[in-house]
Amino acid sequence: MEYKDFIVKTLGKENVGSPLKIGRNEDSPIYRFVNDSERIIYDTSLEYFLKCRESGEVPISFEKAGPREKLFFEPAKTKVAVVTCGGLCPGLNNVIRSLVYELYYRYGISRVIGIKYGYEGLVSGYNHPVVELSPAAVSNIHLTGGSLLGSSRGDQDVEKIVDTLEIMNVNILFCIGGDGTLRGVHDIYKEIERRKVKIAVAGIPKTIDNDINLIQKSFGFETAFSVATDIIRNAHNEASGAYNGIALIKVMGRDSGFIAASAALAVQEVNFVLVPECEFDLYGTRGFLKLLRKRLEDRKHAVIVVAEGAGQHLFEDAGQEKDASGNIKHKDIGVYLKEKITEEFKNKKFPHSIRYIDPSYIIRSIPANANDSKFCNLLAQNAVHAALAGKTDFVVGFWNDHFTLMPIPMVTSKRKKIDINGELWWNVLEATGQPFSMKNP
Amino acid sequence: MEYKDFIVKTLGKENVGSPLKIGRNEDSPIYRFVNDSERIIYDTSLEYFLKCRESGEVPISFEKAGPREKLFFEPAKTKVAVVTCGGLCPGLNNVIRSLVYELYYRYGISRVIGIKYGYEGLVSGYNHPVVELSPAAVSNIHLTGGSLLGSSRGDQDVEKIVDTLEIMNVNILFCIGGDGTLRGVHDIYKEIERRKVKIAVAGIPKTIDNDINLIQKSFGFETAFSVATDIIRNAHNEASGAYNGIALIKVMGRDSGFIAASAALAVQEVNFVLVPECEFDLYGTRGFLKLLRKRLEDRKHAVIVVAEGAGQHLFEDAGQEKDASGNIKHKDIGVYLKEKITEEFKNKKFPHSIRYIDPSYIIRSIPANANDSKFCNLLAQNAVHAALAGKTDFVVGFWNDHFTLMPIPMVTSKRKKIDINGELWWNVLEATGQPFSMKNP
Amino acid sequence: MEYKDFIVKTLGKENVGSPLKIGRNEDSPIYRFVNDSERIIYDTSLEYFLKCRESGEVPISFEKAGPREKLFFEPAKTKVAVVTCGGLCPGLNNVIRSLVYELYYRYGISRVIGIKYGYEGLVSGYNHPVVELSPAAVSNIHLTGGSLLGSSRGDQDVEKIVDTLEIMNVNILFCIGGDGTLRGVHDIYKEIERRKVKIAVAGIPKTIDNDINLIQKSFGFETAFSVATDIIRNAHNEASGAYNGIALIKVMGRDSGFIAASAALAVQEVNFVLVPECEFDLYGTRGFLKLLRKRLEDRKHAVIVVAEGAGQHLFEDAGQEKDASGNIKHKDIGVYLKEKITEEFKNKKFPHSIRYIDPSYIIRSIPANANDSKFCNLLAQNAVHAALAGKTDFVVGFWNDHFTLMPIPMVTSKRKKIDINGELWWNVLEATGQPFSMKNP
Amino acid sequence: MEYKDFIVKTLGKENVGSPLKIGRNEDSPIYRFVNDSERIIYDTSLEYFLKCRESGEVPISFEKAGPREKLFFEPAKTKVAVVTCGGLCPGLNNVIRSLVYELYYRYGISRVIGIKYGYEGLVSGYNHPVVELSPAAVSNIHLTGGSLLGSSRGDQDVEKIVDTLEIMNVNILFCIGGDGTLRGVHDIYKEIERRKVKIAVAGIPKTIDNDINLIQKSFGFETAFSVATDIIRNAHNEASGAYNGIALIKVMGRDSGFIAASAALAVQEVNFVLVPECEFDLYGTRGFLKLLRKRLEDRKHAVIVVAEGAGQHLFEDAGQEKDASGNIKHKDIGVYLKEKITEEFKNKKFPHSIRYIDPSYIIRSIPANANDSKFCNLLAQNAVHAALAGKTDFVVGFWNDHFTLMPIPMVTSKRKKIDINGELWWNVLEATGQPFSMKNP
Repeated sequence: MEYKDFIVKTLGKENVGSPLKIGRNEDSPIYRFVNDSERIIYDTSLEYFLKCRESGEVPISFEKAGPREKLFFEPAKTKVAVVTCGGLCPGLNNVIRSLVYELYYRYGISRVIGIKYGYEGLVSGYNHPVVELSPAAVSNIHLTGGSLLGSSRGDQDVEKIVDTLEIMNVNILFCIGGDGTLRGVHDIYKEIERRKVKIAVAGIPKTIDNDINLIQKSFGFETAFSVATDIIRNAHNEASGAYNGIALIKVMGRDSGFIAASAALAVQEVNFVLVPECEFDLYGTRGFLKLLRKRLEDRKHAVIVVAEGAGQHLFEDAGQEKDASGNIKHKDIGVYLKEKITEEFKNKKFPHSIRYIDPSYIIRSIPANANDSKFCNLLAQNAVHAALAGKTDFVVGFWNDHFTLMPIPMVTSKRKKIDINGELWWNVLEATGQPFSMKNP
Repeated sequence: MEYKDFIVKTLGKENVGSPLKIGRNEDSPIYRFVNDSERIIYDTSLEYFLKCRESGEVPISFEKAGPREKLFFEPAKTKVAVVTCGGLCPGLNNVIRSLVYELYYRYGISRVIGIKYGYEGLVSGYNHPVVELSPAAVSNIHLTGGSLLGSSRGDQDVEKIVDTLEIMNVNILFCIGGDGTLRGVHDIYKEIERRKVKIAVAGIPKTIDNDINLIQKSFGFETAFSVATDIIRNAHNEASGAYNGIALIKVMGRDSGFIAASAALAVQEVNFVLVPECEFDLYGTRGFLKLLRKRLEDRKHAVIVVAEGAGQHLFEDAGQEKDASGNIKHKDIGVYLKEKITEEFKNKKFPHSIRYIDPSYIIRSIPANANDSKFCNLLAQNAVHAALAGKTDFVVGFWNDHFTLMPIPMVTSKRKKIDINGELWWNVLEATGQPFSMKNP
Repeated sequence: MEYKDFIVKTLGKENVGSPLKIGRNEDSPIYRFVNDSERIIYDTSLEYFLKCRESGEVPISFEKAGPREKLFFEPAKTKVAVVTCGGLCPGLNNVIRSLVYELYYRYGISRVIGIKYGYEGLVSGYNHPVVELSPAAVSNIHLTGGSLLGSSRGDQDVEKIVDTLEIMNVNILFCIGGDGTLRGVHDIYKEIERRKVKIAVAGIPKTIDNDINLIQKSFGFETAFSVATDIIRNAHNEASGAYNGIALIKVMGRDSGFIAASAALAVQEVNFVLVPECEFDLYGTRGFLKLLRKRLEDRKHAVIVVAEGAGQHLFEDAGQEKDASGNIKHKDIGVYLKEKITEEFKNKKFPHSIRYIDPSYIIRSIPANANDSKFCNLLAQNAVHAALAGKTDFVVGFWNDHFTLMPIPMVTSKRKKIDINGELWWNVLEATGQPFSMKNP
Repeated sequence: MEYKDFIVKTLGKENVGSPLKIGRNEDSPIYRFVNDSERIIYDTSLEYFLKCRESGEVPISFEKAGPREKLFFEPAKTKVAVVTCGGLCPGLNNVIRSLVYELYYRYGISRVIGIKYGYEGLVSGYNHPVVELSPAAVSNIHLTGGSLLGSSRGDQDVEKIVDTLEIMNVNILFCIGGDGTLRGVHDIYKEIERRKVKIAVAGIPKTIDNDINLIQKSFGFETAFSVATDIIRNAHNEASGAYNGIALIKVMGRDSGFIAASAALAVQEVNFVLVPECEFDLYGTRGFLKLLRKRLEDRKHAVIVVAEGAGQHLFEDAGQEKDASGNIKHKDIGVYLKEKITEEFKNKKFPHSIRYIDPSYIIRSIPANANDSKFCNLLAQNAVHAALAGKTDFVVGFWNDHFTLMPIPMVTSKRKKIDINGELWWNVLEATGQPFSMKNP
């Protein structure tokens, strides 16, 4: 990571003044427009400061988001498209609504269209309709979960996508989506670059798992772990409602266990948190099943939270089943654990009762909570500010409590993961009482 | 059904005056104690009245619950036990708490014990501990779901149970449980009767499915379908969030589809409700899959609610797989439907996207809502009134908005089911637009 | 009350067959249309049955609601108007939506208009606009509280109202409102009758206080007392969070204390429930302040729920303050009690801390809960069935768990109130421990 | 503000090793203990970095919280007391519970007592009892709002307090409270210092208004503005449910308007936010009433959120009413605005309808939401780490997403306020459309 990697691209010289009323007269605050040179330092430790001062290196920093005084796109002539891709996440409708409101009421842009069903809607063959996004059309959508625009997974041909953008005279495309979607945005950017057309592409990072690199917090994550918290709290009732009762709850977290960890820290009744970042053995003296049994013998019930991506190593050991296309078939760790626990305790004639709970679709389709709603609104507004200023191939990030602008390749290069030698995981171990290692020596 | 079938048994002559302050002086209301002769008519139609008047027959009626002026058990000498059996249900802790409070504060009974893990706790071999149930011990339990006492499924030896009751000097046993539990109460009653001991056994009907015969409403049912309503509403977001998106939600309802039907009437966005009371074909011109496809072609998304006991006929046709004990293995209709839908639409190359949601353990472990809380309190109080008056082998029912006392055999003789030719099911058909019959001719 | 008082009026001979698919072929259930002769008996006690049988009198009964086989209004030619009057109540939007859906999808009526701001919208001088009510326009309104149509209080000139109905060619007017609104419906009916025009007027009873005579349950009431329950539960935290802490919560209930009573039965932590049906003294040996102090001395905190209409007698004693129009000014019992408690305990140097909570507007503007949503849907459907069959000057009621049709004068003749010598109030006394009488001898 | 002001005091040399299992062997994470030299930089802008580098000044930074390797207090011999002071706040019980759990399970300290009713409980004359705080005693308290220990307002004699601490042999006192409470902690510290006894006093900052200086986020604040968000959303229904309907909601915020601002950003339907930081005129061309009328004329309804501390300047102008002790009587801005709006529009014969909503006690007594629960747990743990290491006269803060340790005088020197020339307030202006200034020239 170097300082220069974090310079956001722009389409060109900024042309027109912003219509936003900032700092002009007594009717507006003295809050100033944000300059491109304003940046937020990556590492806030004093140690890092001293190190940089000593070595003379420029500290890593990220461009600050916010309203710009000069715009690249002239509002009256600008047409905007919005697309949502990938799995549902609480807050999608809030982001759509805030984009439309900011464009319409603050910048005076009324030509906003919604693309249906993700990138599919930008490819002519699918024949998905386009939706007009006026303030009236979106005024109540934030009260429901899901996405007004629908979504789909998977890549589409970027040439066809850019063809569609050109045919529809779209000047700015906002893509709300996760890692794969953002890589798609970068590919669209490259194709636009190749064609030398003036279209800005902006990513709004969406990951219910909160696992996008260098982004402290993503919308919907808090709502997700809050609902998971309620579900785990009630699952605890299931566990303690039976002799040697076990509640096993699978939560989202394909590559990172942030939902599992945060919910465990909120509930404070979880005994085991299993995450993708930390391998564990099932059997043997230090294995998970041994520890689970001990917990049951001591306390007569146990609550286990497992992230969907945890324990994939267990399947590889068990032989590599492949699907039609030759990919290793990912197995369901929740179902697998349930089976293995049942098998083990049945064999050992250890009386028990297990409840398996898989709430994923329940969580991701709910409306955003208040804090996420606020966050979505500000996120969308900052995306609008940046895109109108001509920034492209960027996402709106969040770091040290400031909204930032990040070049897409920097956030898609790798996933954010729990550092199992760090503070968060240590807190989880403290809260659960589970050992650091469930691997046999 | 005859009038005489609905006479509740008593242990004998009532001995002592009730300590309840009713109608005695200016400090208490004129509300009178309830007489055993007060009864609630089964059928409230004018037609039934006229028919009875003509034929001279005595209309079917149920004994009214409520405080009795004379008690069989002298409070100062009475010891009470409480047990919860079967699956969890919202409100269990409310009922336990209200039993304890009513016994302690209204009748002055402080010797109340809780039996752990259902009927197991009444059988000596299991070594489950007994819990003291004081007001302090139960004061906050209604804020959480589950059961303070834990539960278990299955029958236990009634001789051993009555042995335990005698050894512990229990005078009254309150059993909170469903159909099987209540049959157990009746068996315990018969054993007590055989031994000629003075122990009253009272059932408090618990069925999240609301399927106990001649009982209009059971506690926890409203809470359950309310949560199902929220989940279905969000599942609708999942369905409409994808092209030809299908949300398939399995809800509780082993023999009766009341949760599915009530939630569908509350949500008003459900397209298909599949219940145990109504068989359906998957294939053929009138089959479910044909109709589902038509719905998708018309509206691009569909919401299906299936009760867990629906469609069992589909499995029998498919060959009778048996388990180790030779029983027909019940299959999971939710998983089955998901597979069949996917298979059919894949074969027909009909693009679609399906989300399967199985929230059962999430629903049954939540705390009771306000209306169920109120209901649980009154239910428990009426159970105490009746048991102290010496009634036995009874459950507290609810009919035409009055609490009733019902002989156990009358409520366990068969399940309450949706009348598919009746008003409720017709309302569901109106709300969903699904046809009355999905069977091929 | 006599049997004949409960005959609902009709506009005339029914002309056309219902388009509803009932009992016609294999595609529809055998559930039959409801005949006008089907009725629900008022009193379900066996005692009443026996009394009627002996005396030969016809028991009081109410007409059963439900779909009729013959209609008075031909759907293709029918225009419908909907108006909401009086204070907000959870479920208003559900009722509006279900009226529109039932009219459109079941009966094929697309000409439905919404009247803005209550009866004002039917009077030409106000210039309020009319709203087209299509299914699309109302599809999401049930997710928010309030009324899409807005509301207003107070009477309007019925001649002007009927003029407007005639000018707009409205055939059926649905009025959703309380006691005053329903009296207005009756007046409109009389004016229509006078003019001999064919306009049906239907009332849909709305009272958050659940105080309409002969109607067991009104929509929004359960939602209201559920939210009150949550608020009181938290208020209990306020009370116990201070030394001699008092939480005083004012809930709705102008003439009847059903919300206060039901919430107290759900919470089971309330120490005093003050309702309009039961006068009390503040001072003296048996007065409320004495009892409150005793409770505080014993337990160090107290929770008081007061219905807004309680204790009005206290103000009359204090002199009859009048407003500009000469009406006796109703005082706020919540504020008054707070002042009197503070004054008394300050004078007596009794340390205490009081928190006054007045959540009324918070409660009445929330969305309907699941059970109320289901109820609203069925209520609206039954209103449509009856109005299309040509019934007029009626409301849809609910009695012994059946929807009924009631002549308006029978439900507006007096308020439903808590019988302080009956079961409900006795249950409240049991739950709170408060004495029956807080009046000095 | 200078670097040296942020050095936390300690009681002396650290004596014993921490019992926490950190980084010792394969059973524990490599996560290391935190050193006292680890610090978090105050200002994360690149500009500040460059400025410090140029000038050579050491940047302002705060000590990082976290587990220390060496402790001052030997767990086996340590006695701890916990007290909660001031108004209720969501999360108080979570903090109490986490203190007890951390002390008991992580550090092996079982002698923990709870002081009742704030500082009063530490003064002998009040005779408030002391509560034993075992894990069992606190296991479910986080499920309810309020404080298990009760609270009180106001100062107490610090000599008496320290007498009590000495008599009870308390080694560590945790005080959970706001500005005034923390100043009290500092005074207690000074008295302890004077007596040269070894008692550590730790502050846990509690402010529902989120207005403690140099602390980014306080527990309960998010829960508070989340509930305010729901209430405002429903209030919007009240406003739009009447012709020229006005909903006026007063929220907490005595000196700072963070709840009002955050809720407005979450709801996005608020038209005016009035906060203590920004004076406004009622009358005149630029006054609030003029703007409110314009809004109503344009849109027929308006939503106003007012913080309780807003508009106090209006009262001073109106004459200085004083109370018994000679203090200027603070008036209720909510009630005042309601009266002034009504008066103005009545005088101008402008038809309108106003609903005033004051939910304060409803908000502050609810349980903490999931994110606040997580935060409370970590906050309490960090307080324990620091106190056992012998730190005193400190609070646990939070800055740039790290828990910090702050000398008490630095956080009580002034209030944190909204910068009305900064980003947050600008966002509010954007979201509401209200002008920057509502003062006449």
